[in-house]
Amino acid sequence: MSNRIITISRQFGSGGRTIGRMAAEKLGIPCYDHELIDKITEESGLLKTFVESNAEDVQGGWFAMMTGRDFYGHSLQDDLYLAEARVIRELAEKESCVIIGRGADCILADHDNVLKVFIHASIEKRTERARTQYGLQIDDPESFLNEKDKRRKAFYQLYCDRKWGAIRNYHIALDSGELGLDRCVDLITSLY
Amino acid sequence: MSNRIITISRQFGSGGRTIGRMAAEKLGIPCYDHELIDKITEESGLLKTFVESNAEDVQGGWFAMMTGRDFYGHSLQDDLYLAEARVIRELAEKESCVIIGRGADCILADHDNVLKVFIHASIEKRTERARTQYGLQIDDPESFLNEKDKRRKAFYQLYCDRKWGAIRNYHIALDSGELGLDRCVDLITSLY
Repeated sequence: MSNRIITISRQFGSGGRTIGRMAAEKLGIPCYDHELIDKITEESGLLKTFVESNAEDVQGGWFAMMTGRDFYGHSLQDDLYLAEARVIRELAEKESCVIIGRGADCILADHDNVLKVFIHASIEKRTERARTQYGLQIDDPESFLNEKDKRRKAFYQLYCDRKWGAIRNYHIALDSGELGLDRCVDLITSLY
Repeated sequence: MSNRIITISRQFGSGGRTIGRMAAEKLGIPCYDHELIDKITEESGLLKTFVESNAEDVQGGWFAMMTGRDFYGHSLQDDLYLAEARVIRELAEKESCVIIGRGADCILADHDNVLKVFIHASIEKRTERARTQYGLQIDDPESFLNEKDKRRKAFYQLYCDRKWGAIRNYHIALDSGELGLDRCVDLITSLY
Protein backbone atom coordinates (compact mmCIF):
# COMPACT_ATOMS: atom_id res chain seq x y z
CA MET A 1 0.00 0.00 0.00
CA SER A 2 1.29 3.47 -0.86
CA ASN A 3 2.09 6.14 1.71
CA ARG A 4 -0.85 8.02 3.15
CA ILE A 5 -0.76 11.72 2.48
CA ILE A 6 -2.94 14.48 3.92
CA THR A 7 -2.98 17.72 1.94
CA ILE A 8 -4.23 20.84 3.69
CA SER A 9 -5.42 23.72 1.52
CA ARG A 10 -6.49 26.71 3.56
CA GLN A 11 -7.61 30.28 3.51
CA PHE A 12 -5.10 32.72 4.98
CA GLY A 13 -5.84 33.16 8.69
CA SER A 14 -8.06 30.08 8.97
CA GLY A 15 -5.57 28.19 11.14
CA GLY A 16 -5.11 25.49 8.49
CA ARG A 17 -1.37 25.41 9.00
CA THR A 18 -1.74 24.87 12.75
CA ILE A 19 -4.40 22.22 12.19
CA GLY A 20 -2.07 20.40 9.80
CA ARG A 21 0.81 20.49 12.29
CA MET A 22 -1.40 19.29 15.14
CA ALA A 23 -2.82 16.46 13.02
CA ALA A 24 0.67 15.35 11.94
CA GLU A 25 1.87 15.38 15.53
CA LYS A 26 -1.13 13.35 16.67
CA LEU A 27 -0.54 10.82 13.90
CA GLY A 28 3.22 10.70 14.43
CA ILE A 29 4.05 11.64 10.83
CA PRO A 30 6.01 14.63 9.49
CA CYS A 31 4.38 17.86 8.39
CA TYR A 32 5.80 19.82 5.46
CA ASP A 33 5.09 23.50 5.34
CA HIS A 34 7.99 25.99 5.50
CA GLU A 35 10.23 22.93 5.33
CA LEU A 36 9.29 22.69 1.66
CA ILE A 37 10.84 26.07 0.88
CA ASP A 38 14.44 24.90 1.37
CA LYS A 39 13.83 21.73 -0.62
CA ILE A 40 12.21 23.66 -3.49
CA THR A 41 14.97 26.30 -3.43
CA GLU A 42 17.58 23.59 -3.73
CA GLU A 43 15.67 21.69 -6.43
CA SER A 44 14.92 24.76 -8.54
CA GLY A 45 18.13 26.77 -8.13
CA LEU A 46 15.94 29.88 -7.72
CA LEU A 47 16.43 32.55 -5.06
CA LYS A 48 14.91 31.59 -1.73
CA THR A 49 13.10 34.91 -1.46
CA PHE A 50 11.43 34.24 -4.84
CA VAL A 51 10.43 30.76 -3.74
CA GLU A 52 9.02 32.09 -0.47
CA SER A 53 6.93 34.69 -2.26
CA ASN A 54 5.67 32.54 -5.13
CA ALA A 55 5.41 28.94 -3.96
CA GLU A 56 1.64 28.97 -3.68
CA ASP A 57 0.40 32.35 -4.69
CA VAL A 58 1.26 34.89 -7.28
CA GLN A 59 2.22 38.45 -6.36
CA GLY A 60 0.27 40.54 -8.81
CA GLY A 61 -2.22 37.84 -9.76
CA TRP A 62 -3.09 37.02 -13.34
CA PHE A 63 -1.26 39.96 -14.87
CA ALA A 64 2.06 38.94 -13.32
CA MET A 65 1.53 35.33 -14.30
CA MET A 66 0.89 36.15 -17.90
CA THR A 67 3.80 38.55 -18.24
CA GLY A 68 7.51 37.92 -17.57
CA ARG A 69 7.47 35.00 -20.01
CA ASP A 70 10.17 34.23 -22.55
CA PHE A 71 9.79 33.59 -26.29
CA TYR A 72 8.46 30.10 -25.57
CA GLY A 73 5.87 31.34 -23.08
CA HIS A 74 7.90 30.05 -20.16
CA SER A 75 8.38 31.90 -16.84
CA LEU A 76 10.38 31.58 -13.61
CA GLN A 77 7.07 30.89 -11.90
CA ASP A 78 6.73 27.80 -14.11
CA ASP A 79 10.22 26.60 -13.11
CA LEU A 80 9.27 27.08 -9.49
CA TYR A 81 6.05 25.10 -9.91
CA LEU A 82 7.85 22.23 -11.67
CA ALA A 83 10.49 22.02 -8.92
CA GLU A 84 7.72 22.13 -6.32
CA ALA A 85 5.86 19.30 -8.04
CA ARG A 86 9.02 17.15 -8.11
CA VAL A 87 9.72 17.81 -4.41
CA ILE A 88 6.14 17.02 -3.37
CA ARG A 89 5.98 13.82 -5.46
CA GLU A 90 9.28 12.65 -3.98
CA LEU A 91 8.00 13.26 -0.45
CA ALA A 92 4.84 11.28 -1.18
CA GLU A 93 6.96 8.43 -2.52
CA LYS A 94 9.19 8.50 0.55
CA GLU A 95 6.81 8.63 3.50
CA SER A 96 3.34 9.25 4.86
CA CYS A 97 3.04 12.93 5.75
CA VAL A 98 0.94 16.08 5.95
CA ILE A 99 1.61 18.72 3.29
CA ILE A 100 0.39 22.27 3.78
CA GLY A 101 -0.69 24.22 0.68
CA ARG A 102 1.50 24.57 -2.45
CA GLY A 103 -1.12 22.90 -4.67
CA ALA A 104 -0.15 19.49 -3.23
CA ASP A 105 -3.68 18.16 -3.67
CA CYS A 106 -3.53 18.56 -7.44
CA ILE A 107 0.17 17.68 -7.75
CA LEU A 108 -0.73 14.36 -6.09
CA ALA A 109 -3.94 13.87 -8.10
CA ASP A 110 -2.74 10.47 -9.32
CA HIS A 111 -1.47 9.28 -5.94
CA ASP A 112 -3.93 6.70 -4.70
CA ASN A 113 -3.90 7.49 -1.00
CA VAL A 114 -4.47 11.20 -0.45
CA LEU A 115 -6.94 12.86 1.89
CA LYS A 116 -7.68 16.33 0.54
CA VAL A 117 -8.68 18.82 3.21
CA PHE A 118 -9.77 22.45 2.90
CA ILE A 119 -9.89 24.76 5.94
CA HIS A 120 -11.85 28.00 5.83
CA ALA A 121 -13.37 30.54 8.22
CA SER A 122 -15.30 33.79 8.15
CA ILE A 123 -13.52 37.08 7.43
CA GLU A 124 -14.10 38.09 11.08
CA LYS A 125 -12.48 34.95 12.49
CA ARG A 126 -9.59 35.13 10.04
CA THR A 127 -8.97 38.79 10.84
CA GLU A 128 -8.93 38.02 14.54
CA ARG A 129 -6.47 35.19 13.98
CA ALA A 130 -4.23 37.28 11.69
CA ARG A 131 -4.11 39.94 14.42
CA THR A 132 -3.53 37.68 17.41
CA GLN A 133 -1.34 35.01 15.84
CA TYR A 134 0.65 36.95 13.25
CA GLY A 135 0.44 40.39 14.85
CA LEU A 136 -0.87 41.84 11.59
CA GLN A 137 -2.40 45.30 11.84
CA ILE A 138 -4.74 45.52 8.90
CA ASP A 139 -6.75 48.62 8.02
CA ASP A 140 -9.09 46.86 5.62
CA PRO A 141 -9.04 43.16 6.57
CA GLU A 142 -11.65 42.10 4.02
CA SER A 143 -9.66 43.49 1.07
CA PHE A 144 -6.41 42.12 2.49
CA LEU A 145 -7.80 38.60 2.94
CA ASN A 146 -9.63 38.62 -0.39
CA GLU A 147 -6.39 39.65 -2.10
CA LYS A 148 -4.57 36.75 -0.40
CA ASP A 149 -7.27 34.33 -1.57
CA LYS A 150 -7.16 35.79 -5.07
CA ARG A 151 -3.44 35.08 -5.37
CA ARG A 152 -3.82 31.48 -4.25
CA LYS A 153 -6.76 31.08 -6.62
CA ALA A 154 -4.71 32.41 -9.55
CA PHE A 155 -1.87 29.98 -8.81
CA TYR A 156 -4.24 27.05 -8.49
CA GLN A 157 -6.17 27.92 -11.62
CA LEU A 158 -3.03 28.20 -13.74
CA TYR A 159 -1.22 25.07 -12.61
CA CYS A 160 -4.06 22.83 -11.49
CA ASP A 161 -6.74 24.00 -13.92
CA ARG A 162 -9.23 23.85 -11.08
CA LYS A 163 -11.03 26.31 -8.90
CA TRP A 164 -9.27 26.78 -5.57
CA GLY A 165 -11.78 26.51 -2.73
CA ALA A 166 -14.47 24.81 -4.86
CA ILE A 167 -16.18 22.20 -2.71
CA ARG A 168 -15.81 19.36 -5.25
CA ASN A 169 -12.00 19.42 -5.06
CA TYR A 170 -11.79 18.32 -1.42
CA HIS A 171 -12.78 15.20 0.48
CA ILE A 172 -13.51 17.24 3.57
CA ALA A 173 -13.91 20.99 4.04
CA LEU A 174 -14.12 22.46 7.54
CA ASP A 175 -15.05 25.83 8.99
CA SER A 176 -12.34 26.15 11.63
CA GLY A 177 -13.84 29.37 12.99
CA GLU A 178 -17.08 27.61 13.92
CA LEU A 179 -15.77 24.14 14.76
CA GLY A 180 -12.55 25.15 16.50
CA LEU A 181 -9.05 23.89 15.71
CA ASP A 182 -9.10 20.85 18.02
CA ARG A 183 -12.27 19.44 16.51
CA CYS A 184 -10.89 19.90 13.00
CA VAL A 185 -7.80 17.94 14.04
CA ASP A 186 -9.94 15.16 15.51
CA LEU A 187 -12.04 14.88 12.34
CA ILE A 188 -9.01 14.75 10.06
CA THR A 189 -7.10 12.22 12.15
CA SER A 190 -10.21 10.03 12.49
CA LEU A 191 -10.20 9.68 8.69
CA TYR A 192 -6.56 8.67 8.48
CA MET B 1 -29.79 25.67 25.58
CA SER B 2 -31.68 25.62 22.29
CA ASN B 3 -32.40 22.47 20.32
CA ARG B 4 -29.55 21.13 18.25
CA ILE B 5 -30.28 21.00 14.55
CA ILE B 6 -28.32 19.37 11.76
CA THR B 7 -29.11 20.62 8.27
CA ILE B 8 -28.02 18.47 5.34
CA SER B 9 -27.67 20.14 1.97
CA ARG B 10 -26.72 17.73 -0.77
CA GLN B 11 -26.15 17.19 -4.43
CA PHE B 12 -28.67 14.89 -6.07
CA GLY B 13 -27.36 11.32 -5.97
CA SER B 14 -24.70 12.03 -3.33
CA GLY B 15 -26.46 9.95 -0.67
CA GLY B 16 -26.98 13.00 1.54
CA ARG B 17 -30.52 11.97 2.37
CA THR B 18 -29.41 8.51 3.50
CA ILE B 19 -26.53 9.99 5.50
CA GLY B 20 -28.97 12.34 7.24
CA ARG B 21 -31.34 9.47 8.10
CA MET B 22 -28.51 7.29 9.38
CA ALA B 23 -27.10 10.14 11.49
CA ALA B 24 -30.51 10.89 13.00
CA GLU B 25 -31.05 7.22 13.82
CA LYS B 26 -27.63 6.98 15.46
CA LEU B 27 -28.33 10.12 17.52
CA GLY B 28 -31.89 9.07 18.39
CA ILE B 29 -33.46 12.23 16.99
CA PRO B 30 -36.05 12.62 14.20
CA CYS B 31 -35.12 13.25 10.60
CA TYR B 32 -37.31 15.48 8.42
CA ASP B 33 -37.19 14.94 4.71
CA HIS B 34 -40.34 13.85 2.83
CA GLU B 35 -42.11 14.32 6.17
CA LEU B 36 -41.81 18.05 5.58
CA ILE B 37 -43.95 17.88 2.45
CA ASP B 38 -47.21 17.12 4.31
CA LYS B 39 -46.51 19.79 6.90
CA ILE B 40 -45.72 22.40 4.25
CA THR B 41 -48.77 21.40 2.19
CA GLU B 42 -50.98 21.87 5.22
CA GLU B 43 -49.33 25.14 6.24
CA SER B 44 -49.41 26.65 2.75
CA GLY B 45 -52.74 25.38 1.46
CA LEU B 46 -51.01 24.67 -1.86
CA LEU B 47 -51.38 21.49 -3.89
CA LYS B 48 -49.18 18.67 -2.63
CA THR B 49 -47.83 18.00 -6.12
CA PHE B 50 -46.73 21.65 -6.38
CA VAL B 51 -45.06 21.46 -2.97
CA GLU B 52 -43.29 18.23 -3.93
CA SER B 53 -41.95 19.72 -7.13
CA ASN B 54 -40.94 23.12 -5.78
CA ALA B 55 -39.97 22.77 -2.13
CA GLU B 56 -36.23 23.06 -2.78
CA ASP B 57 -35.69 23.52 -6.46
CA VAL B 58 -37.35 25.38 -9.23
CA GLN B 59 -38.60 23.62 -12.34
CA GLY B 60 -37.41 25.84 -15.13
CA GLY B 61 -34.78 27.67 -13.10
CA TRP B 62 -34.47 31.44 -13.11
CA PHE B 63 -36.94 32.06 -15.90
CA ALA B 64 -39.75 30.27 -14.09
CA MET B 65 -38.92 32.04 -10.83
CA MET B 66 -39.06 35.46 -12.39
CA THR B 67 -42.30 34.84 -14.27
CA GLY B 68 -45.70 33.80 -12.88
CA ARG B 69 -45.71 36.75 -10.50
CA ASP B 70 -48.67 38.98 -9.72
CA PHE B 71 -48.88 42.78 -9.85
CA TYR B 72 -46.97 42.99 -6.56
CA GLY B 73 -44.15 40.74 -7.78
CA HIS B 74 -45.43 37.87 -5.66
CA SER B 75 -45.57 34.20 -6.77
CA LEU B 76 -46.89 30.86 -5.55
CA GLN B 77 -43.26 29.83 -5.16
CA ASP B 78 -42.88 32.65 -2.61
CA ASP B 79 -45.93 31.41 -0.66
CA LEU B 80 -44.43 27.95 -0.65
CA TYR B 81 -41.09 29.24 0.63
CA LEU B 82 -42.73 31.27 3.40
CA ALA B 83 -44.77 28.26 4.56
CA GLU B 84 -41.65 26.13 4.43
CA ALA B 85 -39.72 28.65 6.53
CA ARG B 86 -42.51 28.68 9.16
CA VAL B 87 -42.61 24.87 9.30
CA ILE B 88 -38.83 24.56 9.62
CA ARG B 89 -38.58 27.26 12.29
CA GLU B 90 -41.35 25.59 14.28
CA LEU B 91 -39.59 22.24 14.12
CA ALA B 92 -36.34 23.81 15.33
CA GLU B 93 -38.23 25.38 18.23
CA LYS B 94 -39.87 22.07 19.10
CA GLU B 95 -37.04 19.54 19.06
CA SER B 96 -33.51 18.61 18.10
CA CYS B 97 -33.57 17.03 14.65
CA VAL B 98 -31.96 16.50 11.26
CA ILE B 99 -33.48 18.43 8.36
CA ILE B 100 -32.71 17.42 4.79
CA GLY B 101 -32.50 20.16 2.15
CA ARG B 102 -35.23 22.81 1.66
CA GLY B 103 -32.85 25.68 2.41
CA ALA B 104 -33.05 24.85 6.14
CA ASP B 105 -29.50 26.07 6.73
CA CYS B 106 -30.37 29.61 5.69
CA ILE B 107 -33.89 29.54 7.15
CA LEU B 108 -32.23 28.75 10.49
CA ALA B 109 -29.40 31.26 10.03
CA ASP B 110 -30.27 32.97 13.31
CA HIS B 111 -30.74 29.77 15.28
CA ASP B 112 -27.75 29.46 17.58
CA ASN B 113 -27.23 25.71 17.46
CA VAL B 114 -27.13 24.49 13.89
CA LEU B 115 -24.55 22.25 12.27
CA LYS B 116 -24.58 22.96 8.53
CA VAL B 117 -23.49 20.00 6.42
CA PHE B 118 -23.01 19.71 2.65
CA ILE B 119 -22.70 16.33 0.94
CA HIS B 120 -21.28 16.04 -2.55
CA ALA B 121 -19.74 13.43 -4.85
CA SER B 122 -18.34 13.12 -8.34
CA ILE B 123 -20.66 12.87 -11.35
CA GLU B 124 -19.60 9.21 -11.76
CA LYS B 125 -20.48 8.26 -8.19
CA ARG B 126 -23.75 10.16 -8.29
CA THR B 127 -24.73 8.55 -11.58
CA GLU B 128 -24.00 5.12 -10.15
CA ARG B 129 -26.10 5.89 -7.09
CA ALA B 130 -28.97 7.33 -9.12
CA ARG B 131 -28.99 4.13 -11.19
CA THR B 132 -28.68 1.62 -8.36
CA GLN B 133 -30.73 3.38 -5.66
CA TYR B 134 -33.40 5.18 -7.65
CA GLY B 135 -33.40 2.96 -10.73
CA LEU B 136 -32.92 6.00 -12.96
CA GLN B 137 -31.89 5.28 -16.51
CA ILE B 138 -30.16 8.40 -17.68
CA ASP B 139 -28.81 8.92 -21.20
CA ASP B 140 -26.70 11.94 -20.35
CA PRO B 141 -26.06 11.80 -16.59
CA GLU B 142 -23.82 14.85 -16.50
CA SER B 143 -26.49 17.12 -18.01
CA PHE B 144 -29.20 15.55 -15.86
CA LEU B 145 -27.26 16.06 -12.62
CA ASN B 146 -26.07 19.55 -13.55
CA GLU B 147 -29.68 20.52 -14.27
CA LYS B 148 -30.74 19.21 -10.84
CA ASP B 149 -27.96 21.24 -9.19
CA LYS B 150 -28.90 24.32 -11.21
CA ARG B 151 -32.48 24.20 -9.91
CA ARG B 152 -31.39 23.92 -6.30
CA LYS B 153 -28.89 26.74 -6.86
CA ALA B 154 -31.61 28.99 -8.30
CA PHE B 155 -33.89 28.34 -5.31
CA TYR B 156 -31.11 28.98 -2.83
CA GLN B 157 -29.93 32.12 -4.57
CA LEU B 158 -33.41 33.64 -4.66
CA TYR B 159 -34.49 32.92 -1.10
CA CYS B 160 -31.20 32.73 0.75
CA ASP B 161 -29.21 35.23 -1.30
CA ARG B 162 -26.25 32.88 -1.09
CA LYS B 163 -24.46 30.53 -3.40
CA TRP B 164 -25.64 26.95 -2.95
CA GLY B 165 -22.65 24.64 -2.64
CA ALA B 166 -20.17 27.44 -1.85
CA ILE B 167 -17.74 26.16 0.75
CA ARG B 168 -18.13 29.15 3.11
CA ASN B 169 -21.82 28.38 3.78
CA TYR B 170 -21.21 25.05 5.54
CA HIS B 171 -19.45 23.99 8.71
CA ILE B 172 -18.49 20.69 7.16
CA ALA B 173 -18.56 19.51 3.55
CA LEU B 174 -17.95 15.87 2.71
CA ASP B 175 -17.28 13.92 -0.46
CA SER B 176 -19.49 10.89 0.18
CA GLY B 177 -18.25 9.13 -2.95
CA GLU B 178 -14.68 9.07 -1.66
CA LEU B 179 -15.30 8.78 2.08
CA GLY B 180 -18.27 6.41 1.98
CA LEU B 181 -21.63 6.93 3.69
CA ASP B 182 -20.72 5.33 7.02
CA ARG B 183 -17.70 7.53 7.56
CA CYS B 184 -19.74 10.63 6.73
CA VAL B 185 -22.28 9.58 9.36
CA ASP B 186 -19.52 9.04 11.94
CA LEU B 187 -18.00 12.47 11.28
CA ILE B 188 -21.34 14.26 11.52
CA THR B 189 -22.46 12.49 14.68
CA SER B 190 -19.06 13.06 16.32
CA LEU B 191 -19.69 16.81 15.98
CA TYR B 192 -23.12 16.69 17.55
